[in-house]
Amino acid sequence: MSALETGAGRFTHGRAARVREAVLDATMTVLSDKGWAGLTIPEVAAQAGVHDTTVYRRWGTRERLVVDALLDAADVQLPIPDTGSLHDDLVGFVTELITLTTTPLGIALAHALSAPADDPAIVDACSRYFRTRFETASAIIDRAIARGDVPPTADGTLAIEMLTAPIHFRTLISHHPLDDTFPQRLTNMIIAGLHSVEG
Amino acid sequence: MSALETGAGRFTHGRAARVREAVLDATMTVLSDKGWAGLTIPEVAAQAGVHDTTVYRRWGTRERLVVDALLDAADVQLPIPDTGSLHDDLVGFVTELITLTTTPLGIALAHALSAPADDPAIVDACSRYFRTRFETASAIIDRAIARGDVPPTADGTLAIEMLTAPIHFRTLISHHPLDDTFPQRLTNMIIAGLHSVEG
Repeated sequence: MSALETGAGRFTHGRAARVREAVLDATMTVLSDKGWAGLTIPEVAAQAGVHDTTVYRRWGTRERLVVDALLDAADVQLPIPDTGSLHDDLVGFVTELITLTTTPLGIALAHALSAPADDPAIVDACSRYFRTRFETASAIIDRAIARGDVPPTADGTLAIEMLTAPIHFRTLISHHPLDDTFPQRLTNMIIAGLHSVEG
Repeated sequence: MSALETGAGRFTHGRAARVREAVLDATMTVLSDKGWAGLTIPEVAAQAGVHDTTVYRRWGTRERLVVDALLDAADVQLPIPDTGSLHDDLVGFVTELITLTTTPLGIALAHALSAPADDPAIVDACSRYFRTRFETASAIIDRAIARGDVPPTADGTLAIEMLTAPIHFRTLISHHPLDDTFPQRLTNMIIAGLHSVEG
């Protein structure tokens, strides 16, 4: 491989990565500022400082764009703990999720996600986004099963959903405080719950 | 007591009850149609066909009105099961809640409740409403404790919140289907969860 090729390769990779990052960041900004109605590819492209065609060529539809942007943000901002302890992993996961959800961007995003979306493609995008996120995080429970800490029948994705939903519920609807004891209380309930048998 | 007094008493009671019902129904209609921004006492009074002063005299503020309207609707439409079985009570509770949440009014109301409320009095009203509802429903767990079915340390209000939040989460945010198996899966997790020990 020549130095030029290596350099060109690096440059292309670096530029493509920077464009991707700028577009995904712009998607999150537009979604949290303007909601579903304002989320269009021209708007995102303008916010990112790129041509519309760059976005259309890479993502095709705004739904693919928004799923990619949400998953990318979750990957970066919501790492899945792997401490070797189910308890510590779940408390860590819930604590991180609370931190992320209660930032100004997190609150704006939760409102944008929960606003009525008449477009079935947006409904489908949200559905795929959370399915992927819950499956990713349920690695915590898969590892606990592998260690023999919980039975192999444990309903991992439901456990993650039951830890996640109350945080959004408190942020958006009930406005009950997300106090320091909350991750612990949720985790206690779910760890015992993961030992449930078919009812 | 004279016949007239009895009659007058009945009439007053009946009329007051009818006015109360009309105003509370109007509150739910205005909230689900117009959201927080449109929820004013004059608007509710007009919708109910009563004078503004009738509403001001009885409820004082729109926040007291909305908490009363929401709790009244929940009392009527979301009875707390008492079958003698924790399992059947929880499955019944979740099933009823899903039915209520997925009606057109239920969906509109969930969107109205989750819309940004800049008014701290509205935030406080939501908070009080859900605290009351969770405490009322946690009678299911109190009875299970009294029967010796779960330990006295069981976190009843958290259990009810963890059954409630995923339903709102699916309706508003993830759009995952609220299928027939969902009440059973949530109930299995929570019944085992109620046996958790302090962690």
